[in-house]
Amino acid sequence: MNNTWVNEDNISSFMGNDVFYFNQARIEIQDTIGLRLRKEILEWLNCEITYEQQDATIIFNYCNSKFKNDDTYHIYQTKGKTIIEGNGSKAMLYGFYALIRLRMSHQSEQDYTSTPDQSIRMIDHWDQIDGSIERGYAGASIFFGALNKLDNPDRGDFGVDRVDGDPFRHNQEKLITYARMLASVGINAISLNNVNVRGQGTNLIIDPYLSEVAELADTFRQFGIKLFLSINWESPKHIGGLATSDPLDENVKKFWKDICQGIYKEIPDFGGFLVKADSEGEPGPYQYGRTHAEGANMLARAIGPYQGTIIWRTFVYNSKQDWRDRRTDRAKAAFENFKPLDGQFDKNVILQIKFGPIDFQTSEPLSPLFGALKQTNQMMEFEISAEYLGHQIDVNYVVPQWQHMINVNTKQPDLKDGTSSQVLRETSLNVENTGFAAVGNVGMSPFWTGNPLALANLYGFGRLCWDNRATANDILKEWLDQTFVESNATTKRSIFNIMSTSNETYRMYNAPLGVGFMVVPHFHYGVSVNGYEYDRWGTYHFADRNGVGVDRTQATGSGFTKFYSPKVASQYENVETTPDDLVLFFHHLPYTTVLKNGETLIQTIYDQHFEGYERSSNYLKEWQKLSTDLDKNIYEKVLQCLHKQLQNALEWRDQVNTYFYRMSGIKDKRGRKIYQ
Amino acid sequence: MNNTWVNEDNISSFMGNDVFYFNQARIEIQDTIGLRLRKEILEWLNCEITYEQQDATIIFNYCNSKFKNDDTYHIYQTKGKTIIEGNGSKAMLYGFYALIRLRMSHQSEQDYTSTPDQSIRMIDHWDQIDGSIERGYAGASIFFGALNKLDNPDRGDFGVDRVDGDPFRHNQEKLITYARMLASVGINAISLNNVNVRGQGTNLIIDPYLSEVAELADTFRQFGIKLFLSINWESPKHIGGLATSDPLDENVKKFWKDICQGIYKEIPDFGGFLVKADSEGEPGPYQYGRTHAEGANMLARAIGPYQGTIIWRTFVYNSKQDWRDRRTDRAKAAFENFKPLDGQFDKNVILQIKFGPIDFQTSEPLSPLFGALKQTNQMMEFEISAEYLGHQIDVNYVVPQWQHMINVNTKQPDLKDGTSSQVLRETSLNVENTGFAAVGNVGMSPFWTGNPLALANLYGFGRLCWDNRATANDILKEWLDQTFVESNATTKRSIFNIMSTSNETYRMYNAPLGVGFMVVPHFHYGVSVNGYEYDRWGTYHFADRNGVGVDRTQATGSGFTKFYSPKVASQYENVETTPDDLVLFFHHLPYTTVLKNGETLIQTIYDQHFEGYERSSNYLKEWQKLSTDLDKNIYEKVLQCLHKQLQNALEWRDQVNTYFYRMSGIKDKRGRKIYQ
Repeated sequence: MNNTWVNEDNISSFMGNDVFYFNQARIEIQDTIGLRLRKEILEWLNCEITYEQQDATIIFNYCNSKFKNDDTYHIYQTKGKTIIEGNGSKAMLYGFYALIRLRMSHQSEQDYTSTPDQSIRMIDHWDQIDGSIERGYAGASIFFGALNKLDNPDRGDFGVDRVDGDPFRHNQEKLITYARMLASVGINAISLNNVNVRGQGTNLIIDPYLSEVAELADTFRQFGIKLFLSINWESPKHIGGLATSDPLDENVKKFWKDICQGIYKEIPDFGGFLVKADSEGEPGPYQYGRTHAEGANMLARAIGPYQGTIIWRTFVYNSKQDWRDRRTDRAKAAFENFKPLDGQFDKNVILQIKFGPIDFQTSEPLSPLFGALKQTNQMMEFEISAEYLGHQIDVNYVVPQWQHMINVNTKQPDLKDGTSSQVLRETSLNVENTGFAAVGNVGMSPFWTGNPLALANLYGFGRLCWDNRATANDILKEWLDQTFVESNATTKRSIFNIMSTSNETYRMYNAPLGVGFMVVPHFHYGVSVNGYEYDRWGTYHFADRNGVGVDRTQATGSGFTKFYSPKVASQYENVETTPDDLVLFFHHLPYTTVLKNGETLIQTIYDQHFEGYERSSNYLKEWQKLSTDLDKNIYEKVLQCLHKQLQNALEWRDQVNTYFYRMSGIKDKRGRKIYQ
Repeated sequence: MNNTWVNEDNISSFMGNDVFYFNQARIEIQDTIGLRLRKEILEWLNCEITYEQQDATIIFNYCNSKFKNDDTYHIYQTKGKTIIEGNGSKAMLYGFYALIRLRMSHQSEQDYTSTPDQSIRMIDHWDQIDGSIERGYAGASIFFGALNKLDNPDRGDFGVDRVDGDPFRHNQEKLITYARMLASVGINAISLNNVNVRGQGTNLIIDPYLSEVAELADTFRQFGIKLFLSINWESPKHIGGLATSDPLDENVKKFWKDICQGIYKEIPDFGGFLVKADSEGEPGPYQYGRTHAEGANMLARAIGPYQGTIIWRTFVYNSKQDWRDRRTDRAKAAFENFKPLDGQFDKNVILQIKFGPIDFQTSEPLSPLFGALKQTNQMMEFEISAEYLGHQIDVNYVVPQWQHMINVNTKQPDLKDGTSSQVLRETSLNVENTGFAAVGNVGMSPFWTGNPLALANLYGFGRLCWDNRATANDILKEWLDQTFVESNATTKRSIFNIMSTSNETYRMYNAPLGVGFMVVPHFHYGVSVNGYEYDRWGTYHFADRNGVGVDRTQATGSGFTKFYSPKVASQYENVETTPDDLVLFFHHLPYTTVLKNGETLIQTIYDQHFEGYERSSNYLKEWQKLSTDLDKNIYEKVLQCLHKQLQNALEWRDQVNTYFYRMSGIKDKRGRKIYQ
């Protein structure tokens, strides 16, 4: 099974007869990327490399510092030959994969120049050394696992088993294929392990684990991908045996300096640390009375001498909220914690900010930190791994939502271009330390992802990182052309129709209109209207017999709206100017409120949930027509997923509708069946 | 830590100077119970046994067949000596523990005769060979555990880990202490393993595990306790390698005969099998188109030659119910499955019937099977292990509820004594095969149970099995006297006040008035008003903006009431004659309905939840006064539990009240705080 978009069997018919030539024949032994590129040609694609330029069909033209950006490549044709031009091997590698993409998706290679919009294009793995993946829905980790687990009565729902022996999986074939996928869409950084660093996972930064991390770094380095590690803030205590992890303590500083020295000895181009601190029970600087700037900068100074980076997550909020207290608003937390620190972070610190103020829900506004932070390096964080978006069971091509989120206009008056993706660059201290990151979605599943179609999200995320103006539909078409090479146009069109509407469909049968979190607690798949209503996570819908939604206005609610620029704040402050799909995120409304779509709130809830189910039902029917034109394994697996999705959509439809019918007593005006 | 009621240190001050004499000196080597009794005197209590009757203070007077029941003992005093009389060693052992109890609880030993009301007095263990206990809240299993667990990605929430090596714990001291506790209150049967028999647990009926089960049987035999095993219905397939487990298949019959032969070779007095079939995903005869009588009788005939017994659970219902279908009623399931089979079961089959029609909830009516079955051996099943009753965290002395349930008048016109506990005897095929069983509640916790006070429920269950007319309060006083020997009367009075009201208190802050199942799914601790409302388990409250409750009447509901005798059916059919604490079990009522207590339904919900919390708060305050007069470890542990209970009661109070306030819009007439 090889359903990746860089499938050598598929590619061979597009470039099997090509002969390659390097104008820079002396690919030095240090140039591991150049060596990899030669291997890709010779061993992966089984093509030839010639030393005679006239024999070549494709020429790699090394041109040193012609381009401002070392990632930039230029593909063009001259005298019947295709030239790939760039400053060095990394650009060549990108150009090489780009040429494959252009050919497979029937685009012109006449004259194509491309430069990435984001400097850091990163996948965050939430893999754990026992082989499990937090929020993973594609089987076990490709990095770790397959071990005997020791008796561990304290393992919680999301804990880590204690393991015995070497926790690394050492599946080199899998790793190379994965690195190829990433590089082919321009990903240039990964973090290896879960941001919740627990148990033995804390020890990845020291030997004996560190030398194995270095082996992984060797593999990914060939593909231009830097490796990061998530760390446990309490490492000075756990590893160093210190009494404190206070960032201002001299021994703590020394501990981290020593750790960095140790790491860079084995991994000279190590990326840096990804840190979840003071969040959802994880330790952090707050417990020592220090700010997050003090915490992050301490690490930044330990790693600075090696050109390392500290990526610091802003996902900090009170996760022991009392549902009784309607003044507390989790949406405000990241802003309140980090806006006051703007300008205080070192140049090699990056704040990693979730795109929305809550947590990767189906419908959220842009986090108000974007545009409000003026002198801070930032990355925007996404989640490919479908935690709240169907667990890689339900078809959900999420790129449309991401495309929307990176194109929000922040309307900050002091910014030239207020578009969310551009804001990162405009407000950065150094543009190299900005970008996008996303939680990865692959595992040991034979399809890499649970639902084989979910692989499009990994593809799409990479493509969107590189080209912020790309459209979700164009990206999807590319992916389909590269993945379903043997299928006919009608088949691809059908899959396109399913996938391109799937994100909206999922949103329709999910929590309505921006309220979010109507999911089964912990698992986050499947409907539970009140699952988080009385919990400690700050995720409420406040439905009662009269209405539903969260009042976040300044006039009568939590005041969250004031964090936005004046124009955006005013838009969200008023029901009339708030988009329907966010209306319950910002307002608590009577069921009879008439929305922009001309229907009442309650009728909109009913309509969307009926339509979400209808669409899912149609997806299944459409898919069933494709059985003869698809790989059997993929067809069957997706079919299985679509059956489950239909069941899921049914439960969402009926439970949400019945819940609100029982609450409101208002019938569906179209007379459809709502269970009592 | 020894907080059992049979604590030798406590007992010594009551009988440390006693000298014992056996009139039947030749305790034969085969009489393991007699040998145990000698050991109890000599090694456990460190007392003397004399061969000169005149030196004795306590005389065991073996009198063969003087009493109709071999369990009956008679304690009396004559010439300054205390005589314990009975047919044989088992009665002597019971009498011995009874004498300890009488002395410690300051009751007279002048003339006390006692005969058990129930023949089988049984504890069902839901222990699993990996050391876990399904629905266990007292640490790991005392029978199994402490092993390396193998990688088992498929382990579900309630699965069993695969284990390596010998799964038995072999903690003989723990086992002896436990057996002593059981025998001291008259328990004469245990089943060893979870009724959901999974993985390697299936193999307990064959070697090498069987010989270790036999060792356990040896231990419990000394205390007059027979050992049963739960079996997997599919054993013929899993163990025997057969293609079927059809009870009418000759090879299946032979398989079970062989199994029984193998077991009785190693355990000559083996009790028999406990069977959960066709229930909650477990396999059973239905899948072969056979009745449960056919299934049970097949096993009964295999085990019959050895005087073994088949205990067959009636907990059979559709656990994949659709919440949309309000006609299906889980309460009806056991009756519908088993009433038609009345008279078809062999004499060595016993139906084990949960006391209520649903599942050990805080408030349920008696199962209508009791009294409706006329020619079937029956046992009434209880759950000591606080699954729905506070997880051995919240103080919950449940004996009052059990006392109530065994004294319900079934009003069956054809029965002499329709009292539920007597019905078992009246309708039995042979009275030896009737009794009570309960899911056990002990584990490796240093206090045996999570909350040390929960041990009173084990004590109370045993006492109630023996003496169906005993009162919960008397039993509690006995237990307190034997457990808190060193504490003063005021302390014991305080604990009595807490414990004797605790079951009602828990019910107050729990799901209101008989609806049940407002608990966190799977875990069953803590409130989740809608946790089971849209699930597949048939456990709904149907609350909407107008009212709440399950209509089980014949007139307008599921018709469940018709399963009762005409008088009881008519009582439950009418709201006016249904007791308040079951009113929502039988009726769906508007919030404004005035109940028997003179308050509206909604006001009763509010009142009970406020009072439940108030009481919990008072428990904590009362307990805190006892710190100086109690063992420090017990004091601290209970204190910790009471703090958690208060938090639990608070969440129940506020979530239930807020839920119904949001639904109904009706305010508390006493103006207390209900969060919006």
